Amino acid sequence: MAAAAASTAFSFSTDCCNRGAKRVFRITALQVASNRGPSAFLRGVRTINTSACTTASRCSSSGFVKTETITEASAKVIDGKSVAKEIRDEIAIEICRMKESIGVAPGLAVILVGDRKDSATYVRNKKKACESVGIKSYEVHLAEDSSEQEVLKYISGFNDDPSVHGILVQLPLPSHMNEQNVLNAVCIEKDVDGFNPLNIGRLAMRDREPLFVPCTPKGCIELLHRYGVTIKGKRAAVIGRSNIVGMPAALLLQREDATVTVVHSRTKNPEEITREADIVISAVGQPNMLRGSWIKPGSVIIDVGINPVEDSKSPRGYRLVGDVCYEEASQLASAITPVPGGVGPMTIAMLLLNTLVAAKRANNFK
Amino acid sequence: MAAAAASTAFSFSTDCCNRGAKRVFRITALQVASNRGPSAFLRGVRTINTSACTTASRCSSSGFVKTETITEASAKVIDGKSVAKEIRDEIAIEICRMKESIGVAPGLAVILVGDRKDSATYVRNKKKACESVGIKSYEVHLAEDSSEQEVLKYISGFNDDPSVHGILVQLPLPSHMNEQNVLNAVCIEKDVDGFNPLNIGRLAMRDREPLFVPCTPKGCIELLHRYGVTIKGKRAAVIGRSNIVGMPAALLLQREDATVTVVHSRTKNPEEITREADIVISAVGQPNMLRGSWIKPGSVIIDVGINPVEDSKSPRGYRLVGDVCYEEASQLASAITPVPGGVGPMTIAMLLLNTLVAAKRANNFK
Repeated sequence: MAAAAASTAFSFSTDCCNRGAKRVFRITALQVASNRGPSAFLRGVRTINTSACTTASRCSSSGFVKTETITEASAKVIDGKSVAKEIRDEIAIEICRMKESIGVAPGLAVILVGDRKDSATYVRNKKKACESVGIKSYEVHLAEDSSEQEVLKYISGFNDDPSVHGILVQLPLPSHMNEQNVLNAVCIEKDVDGFNPLNIGRLAMRDREPLFVPCTPKGCIELLHRYGVTIKGKRAAVIGRSNIVGMPAALLLQREDATVTVVHSRTKNPEEITREADIVISAVGQPNMLRGSWIKPGSVIIDVGINPVEDSKSPRGYRLVGDVCYEEASQLASAITPVPGGVGPMTIAMLLLNTLVAAKRANNFK
Repeated sequence: MAAAAASTAFSFSTDCCNRGAKRVFRITALQVASNRGPSAFLRGVRTINTSACTTASRCSSSGFVKTETITEASAKVIDGKSVAKEIRDEIAIEICRMKESIGVAPGLAVILVGDRKDSATYVRNKKKACESVGIKSYEVHLAEDSSEQEVLKYISGFNDDPSVHGILVQLPLPSHMNEQNVLNAVCIEKDVDGFNPLNIGRLAMRDREPLFVPCTPKGCIELLHRYGVTIKGKRAAVIGRSNIVGMPAALLLQREDATVTVVHSRTKNPEEITREADIVISAVGQPNMLRGSWIKPGSVIIDVGINPVEDSKSPRGYRLVGDVCYEEASQLASAITPVPGGVGPMTIAMLLLNTLVAAKRANNFK
């Protein structure tokens, strides 16, 4: 399984720090750090976003943070880019040790079907990342009109190939294919994305261990660990309940003894609930949805959203922001991930780590 | 998989309505409706219970409910016994239709190892319940010193037997057996307890359907449905996070669009969080832990706990109470399950229903 942008054609919402600009709510482009499709949350909560971000006066009228009073950020910046680099370096060292000891390098196979540019970019980035740490990458690129049977044939081949330890099917697949059928064909020992229901079940159950933890939520927790954030006994809010990020993130936090509330599109008072949380993981794909009034002072904020907002000053015409209004939240939180440079770089690092884990397990290498 | 008491030798905690009696906190006997072993919650929250229930004055000093002011219960009683009867009648009719149409009766196999009296009682009760609706039951009773291999041999036989649609291994197994190995041997199509991680994973994931939903949490949700309780958009607190009740109950509530918080032994302010909930499912096995001060007025309370408390007036010397102080909660809640007669009877009804579902699925009978 793998990453895919919500849409090749972005459109933009305004940034909360850019209120004079034209707001385009027609389609809010979505791209959580996992680079998957739009979460269901978006469809339900668009109104929350619009009401929160409509005007400067509304923002101030929340009575929580007056933007005028904001002078400088107090939160520690959780630098995902540098942590991801650190992890990639650790992986590279471990792979060297593995090669020297048993002569085996981890292998990751990626299957790409069709000609989506965004998918091609993701596959290229993964390939590069693999090379940088010493993972051998195998790529199959099939035509858009390939049959499901053909894809299954390649998966079956990789399942049987002992030099391949992880298999990713780049999503989305062409609409004539059954995504679940295809993904279920990847054997669980090579399902480095960790989305196999058996893995998710083990993640949910006490005294069971998943073979792989999904990359983006694993990256979120790893950031908390590396920044010494205590999880046990803390209140946590996970905003969004996607199979890819929100749901497994909530299970991971609960495994570490947080008291977790999952906030979603049907939650009536998301702001109030989020404000109770010591740790917030947001994965909804709504630019700047979490204003200052959502943030408990001293809390830790992990922002999984990567949303383009219109920006005439940028050469590209847009810039990327998170689900959290960084400007406001960073005044209140004790630590916060930036966007970009927060969770994003962690996803590929965790994919590399899962591939290494798969290779070690397959070779019984400790 | 199946039910087993926490201990054959009960000891007793006091009822909150029986404060003069001797309190024995040495061992608090535990028996949630699923009749499984003690939850981890108990070990962590004993202090919560003792502080909440120590004396009448403490109870009043919570400032929430003064017991003196309690006159009569206002909550609707959620009558699990009668709902379970209704469901068993529906199952019996459906089984008649199935027999008449395709000549097949559902079959449930139960494997019992050893001579625990409580386990024998549970197996007997299940057998009786099966007979009452027309499910054929198959029983294997093995000696305490049987080998794991022997148990696996019987499971394998039942897996292959087309007249058996559901398989239960009565827990606990003797300590020389690996419970996970044994339970994993039951093929997923016959795992009517729904505890296979693949089922739990599907339960957690959106757009996936579990083959079976675990019986006790399924019974809780069924009670909410049959009493017309709206779940969508409500705040829910699930107290306890066991694999058997708490965790799957939380997943079920979330599937129905509640905003769920799982409260557990490491939660710092369980009372406050529970008081925010419109729906509470408690499965901790702590007698009367949830006092009036935990209950939001108008909320709906599903009490999974079945805990014996000392009662000199009872011929048995004890009586059964829930996790919730019924006397206090029923003044505040809009609806509440009694103990006994609430969730308890629903568990076996759901087991029968899962067995019927398994048989229909195996025979492609709609």
